Amino acid sequence: MLVEQARAGQPRAVARLISLVEDASPSLREVMAALAPHTGQAYVVGLTGPPGVGKSTSTSALVSAYRAVGKRVGVLAVDPSSPFSGGALLGDRIRMQEHATDTGVFIRSMASRGHLGGLAWATPQALRVLDAAGCDVILVETVGVGQSEIEVASAADTTVVLMAPGMGDGIQAAKAGILEIGDVYVVNKADRDGAQTTARELNHMLSLGPSRGPESWRPPILKTVASRGEGLDEVVEALEKHRAWMAANGTLDLRRRRRVRAEIEAIALAELRSRMGDVAEGRRADGLADRILAGTLDPYAAADELIDGLAQG
Amino acid sequence: MLVEQARAGQPRAVARLISLVEDASPSLREVMAALAPHTGQAYVVGLTGPPGVGKSTSTSALVSAYRAVGKRVGVLAVDPSSPFSGGALLGDRIRMQEHATDTGVFIRSMASRGHLGGLAWATPQALRVLDAAGCDVILVETVGVGQSEIEVASAADTTVVLMAPGMGDGIQAAKAGILEIGDVYVVNKADRDGAQTTARELNHMLSLGPSRGPESWRPPILKTVASRGEGLDEVVEALEKHRAWMAANGTLDLRRRRRVRAEIEAIALAELRSRMGDVAEGRRADGLADRILAGTLDPYAAADELIDGLAQG
Repeated sequence: MLVEQARAGQPRAVARLISLVEDASPSLREVMAALAPHTGQAYVVGLTGPPGVGKSTSTSALVSAYRAVGKRVGVLAVDPSSPFSGGALLGDRIRMQEHATDTGVFIRSMASRGHLGGLAWATPQALRVLDAAGCDVILVETVGVGQSEIEVASAADTTVVLMAPGMGDGIQAAKAGILEIGDVYVVNKADRDGAQTTARELNHMLSLGPSRGPESWRPPILKTVASRGEGLDEVVEALEKHRAWMAANGTLDLRRRRRVRAEIEAIALAELRSRMGDVAEGRRADGLADRILAGTLDPYAAADELIDGLAQG
Repeated sequence: MLVEQARAGQPRAVARLISLVEDASPSLREVMAALAPHTGQAYVVGLTGPPGVGKSTSTSALVSAYRAVGKRVGVLAVDPSSPFSGGALLGDRIRMQEHATDTGVFIRSMASRGHLGGLAWATPQALRVLDAAGCDVILVETVGVGQSEIEVASAADTTVVLMAPGMGDGIQAAKAGILEIGDVYVVNKADRDGAQTTARELNHMLSLGPSRGPESWRPPILKTVASRGEGLDEVVEALEKHRAWMAANGTLDLRRRRRVRAEIEAIALAELRSRMGDVAEGRRADGLADRILAGTLDPYAAADELIDGLAQG
């Protein structure tokens, strides 16, 4: 029922399903099975970059640009650190409000809440919901900084790295990480002093990377003023170009396969942790512990026995 | 050979074995099996507390106090955050140098290096090495702060929480966490102003906790000046009292059993992660990924198949 409503594009049903992901609900198993035949259509774009570059504004402007060409757009704002659920976070994101009444746009924030599987577990499942709800494009934006950003970006087909003028230090700090994951680079706030310098520095640092063959993708460096909606059409153009390039040479399949493998692994690991907890609470684990304490068993042999116990569910 | 040397109390062999733990060496499986019959004798004392309370100095003074009554002592300093190995860290710990030539004392620092199993994996195995090497008492001290401290303390039979005068805010910050894990509280730097106030505050906060029955353990609050070795005999006395109390009513067995179960679980989880990586790299995972991408399989069903694959090693 909820799945049918979500597929029909009802925002409330979509929100409910993503809440189930956020809460790691046991019913997800059934939900994902029902969604499976209806996924695989959406193009997933990750947006990342240091704080202060205007990520939220850029995401909103990119939604407008995609809406202008008639695409249905999903936005997933992921907060790896917040213990609060989507609603509160979303309330702050004034920039997004302009899309609140547009039925062709789904906007959802998701906190990882530190549950068992973490972001690697939750993000791909939330993407599945938006995908099955008929989104042509899904923008994944991380709130916060650090390793988790890169993790979330790895869930995308194409990753956009945002910078802003005067963030030379930011580039240094972000170092290799950010320079390796970008497919498209955007210098936002390009009306400010130093935009040209930032773009040049970025270009220089990218050129220091591994040399690329003639057929490889050379990440473009674009300039935007997201607050005024300037330069976003060029970003959309670059994204479509990258998507076509990936589709033509098999990179898209490769990335999606890698992503799905990571997703399966995250779900399996969460399941194993849960089974292990069940086994460890049981009498079997007490028996193992007693034998170790008596010195008749070592912890590795005990772990082997515990793993054998897992296979029995 | 190395195991025999360690059991004979050769410091270098002990150091080598703990390095194997630090490096997550595959040979540990064999090492732990050889050590198993010779463990279970050591009394493990965890030392924790906010930065600046004099943890390192207190540990060193406690070593002296135990040495004065003829006990063989091991010290395991665990640094959850440092990417550096024990050697470098140890070099800084001047206070410990006074024990460097004492053959009845083993001192080892260990960094977790962010490897697969983390601290929960490494700490108990390092304790096994020191245990089998003939230590009567092992002091586990964490370098750094936060949740990891509590994690490491949970590997101990008895946990000592250190405070210092003027750390009222520190107590507030540490809040419930530190007040729940202490078996013995020590106000160090007791020659400074405010020691009495800190002890009184501590006593007040402990009294706010769950009411304790007449037979339950009431954590004592002691005062020391570790830099001058003052008050440490009383700490040793309190520790032995707590140990005897735990042994008499079964708490010691209970704690050790819980600890060993956590150890088995950590080893099993690391093993499963590793097997999963092997499976996920293989053709089987590609097949699963392709079916998900085609919409004919959902990620939960795929995870189930992946788990079935693990049972086959």
